[in-house]
Amino acid sequence: MNISITKTTTPKAKPTMDNLPFGKYFSDHMFVMDYAEGKGWYDPRIVPYGPLELEPSAMVFHYAQEIFEGLKAYKSKDGHVRLFRPYKNFERMNVSAERLAIPALDVDFCVDALKQLVELDRDWIPEQEGASLYIRPFIIATDEYLGVRPSDTYKFLIICSPSGLYYPEGLDPVKIYVEDKYVRTVRGATGFTKTGGNYASSIKAQVIAHERGYSQVLWLDGVEQKYVEEVGSMNIFFKIDGEVVTPMLNGSILSGITRMSTIELLKKWGVPVSERRISIQEIFDAYQAGKLEECFGTGTAAIISPVGELRWEDHVMTINDNQIGEITQRVFDTITGIQTGTMPDEMNWVVTVD
Amino acid sequence: MNISITKTTTPKAKPTMDNLPFGKYFSDHMFVMDYAEGKGWYDPRIVPYGPLELEPSAMVFHYAQEIFEGLKAYKSKDGHVRLFRPYKNFERMNVSAERLAIPALDVDFCVDALKQLVELDRDWIPEQEGASLYIRPFIIATDEYLGVRPSDTYKFLIICSPSGLYYPEGLDPVKIYVEDKYVRTVRGATGFTKTGGNYASSIKAQVIAHERGYSQVLWLDGVEQKYVEEVGSMNIFFKIDGEVVTPMLNGSILSGITRMSTIELLKKWGVPVSERRISIQEIFDAYQAGKLEECFGTGTAAIISPVGELRWEDHVMTINDNQIGEITQRVFDTITGIQTGTMPDEMNWVVTVD
Ligand SMILES: Cc1ncc(COP(=O)(O)O)c(C=O)c1O
Ligand SMILES: Cc1ncc(COP(=O)(O)O)c(C=O)c1O
Repeated sequence: MNISITKTTTPKAKPTMDNLPFGKYFSDHMFVMDYAEGKGWYDPRIVPYGPLELEPSAMVFHYAQEIFEGLKAYKSKDGHVRLFRPYKNFERMNVSAERLAIPALDVDFCVDALKQLVELDRDWIPEQEGASLYIRPFIIATDEYLGVRPSDTYKFLIICSPSGLYYPEGLDPVKIYVEDKYVRTVRGATGFTKTGGNYASSIKAQVIAHERGYSQVLWLDGVEQKYVEEVGSMNIFFKIDGEVVTPMLNGSILSGITRMSTIELLKKWGVPVSERRISIQEIFDAYQAGKLEECFGTGTAAIISPVGELRWEDHVMTINDNQIGEITQRVFDTITGIQTGTMPDEMNWVVTVD
Repeated sequence: MNISITKTTTPKAKPTMDNLPFGKYFSDHMFVMDYAEGKGWYDPRIVPYGPLELEPSAMVFHYAQEIFEGLKAYKSKDGHVRLFRPYKNFERMNVSAERLAIPALDVDFCVDALKQLVELDRDWIPEQEGASLYIRPFIIATDEYLGVRPSDTYKFLIICSPSGLYYPEGLDPVKIYVEDKYVRTVRGATGFTKTGGNYASSIKAQVIAHERGYSQVLWLDGVEQKYVEEVGSMNIFFKIDGEVVTPMLNGSILSGITRMSTIELLKKWGVPVSERRISIQEIFDAYQAGKLEECFGTGTAAIISPVGELRWEDHVMTINDNQIGEITQRVFDTITGIQTGTMPDEMNWVVTVD
């Protein structure tokens, strides 16, 4: 399929690239493609960024048949535009699509479309340290119909936002609240996908955690409310007595691409790492025994976020004296080094655009 | 707040009111109101039905911060327009709003707005038996922002769809598949609300059930996958050995207004009815003992839907010889009689518009 390109005739003023907020400004263009039952995905096009016109009866407004992805583009010192493992994002989008009864995408085609879009908007990629072009592919159901069933029509879009840090804390350790009342999802439901409903369901607990002075919530499993799952938009890692542990992919947490990359790096370095079920009680026991050495979150938006405090019920666990740990720092340096091109990409993770 | 009214200058052709589909046609007008943090709900207006213009970054497309309601208007033989328990819908909408971190609505104001809208579009209310004007209030998050947090801006709309039967079966008993793999939701999550994500998560199991020849799925609880919860868009009732039983409100099922009305009627009639936890094994045991006498679903869209067959794993339970049961019929006759005005409204459920 050929991608038609309509360039904007009224380029927007770019925001000041210093101290950029996350996900608030959008570049000049977007990619759009439509789907109709019997016809498949059609009319792929890059057009000026602008509003969507949808009937109030469009299914996405009522039944949230919607999925999304998130990845980043960086510009390296020599001016090359670099995408971090973009195939993984579109492969995961197809996993989400399958669960949400949304038609699959052609992964290679999507990466190609993304390259063309990012190339066109390359001047929107910030070069400041810690900043990047955050890329948001998403699919929404557009049938004008109020019955509950899969839509016959969809829109797939890619929008781009020059963005700074996701957490204002940056690499300063964050405080995380272990949620013991609300539940995000459960095995058998949609927790392993990136679908809007998972996030809608998480907002309230996050608001309460904020009010209590915590920046994020750590979710426990929906069945027993005992086992650690993940943070709002990050997977979670613990270093306990020399071993790095992260919850296994159990159907209710997202298979994070930063998680996957972190595990691959640790293995390469010979650091013991295991993916398994881990209860919050075990974390607390390790803490009390002085063996909870590091804790960090992994996710595209924040990349690596050290956790300095975990609160579980009345227990406050201060981790590594509220300092970033050694492994945490090494994973952060390596992943950001590869992303921005200051370190060699030995794993072949980066796809350059030009 | 005063509701401004802009009438359409190009009224649409009405569909043939015989054999109307459900939720496919929409009336000439809609109600719209906006919300901004610090300002509250503002600018309530009735305007011609038409598309919404939203930025691709609008939060509803990404994080499904959205809730909805569903109720019906009927026209009685003497021409009066009748709404069935509309206050309950807006009260429940506020329950959903609270869980989804969406600002509350003024219930009386909403019923008033709805009355004005329905009065204006009264010619869109079908008078055919079984048909009605299906009313869909909904709220969507509109902030142009990609971080996960509550939106600061929202849109509240009410749209109206002249609709026929929800199930093509009508009062013919439906076949229902007991879902033992997929899960809709779990206590602590959003199951008791009407938020899009609950429905998105349910679509896949429903598609599979359809392929197997079943019209709906009966969900089991998310924790043990043992206890009966509800159907896709209905609560469920069983008559076992003379007693009517329905799952208790446990935080993961919707508090249906038809369910509530059914319980109130049964109590008034002196029919034993209990709300409690009920396992699918108990249903099957009752079936085997010849004591599963009736089964029916309750919901605004289908009103009362007799269940003729329940399939659980390899067990096929045929209920009441695939005929509508006595209690099922009586509840159906009474609720529809009250809704349409052919029976006295002793419970004061109906709100007339004019
Ligand atoms: C719920 C959730 N968990 C984990 C992650 C981390 O995944 P990734 O590393 O692919 O960004 C994200 C963000 O994408 C997320 O939304
Ligand atoms: C999940 C679910 N359960 C039950 C119901 C029945 O509720 P009500 O009787 O208020 O329509 C509905 C429909 O509204 C529903 O969507």
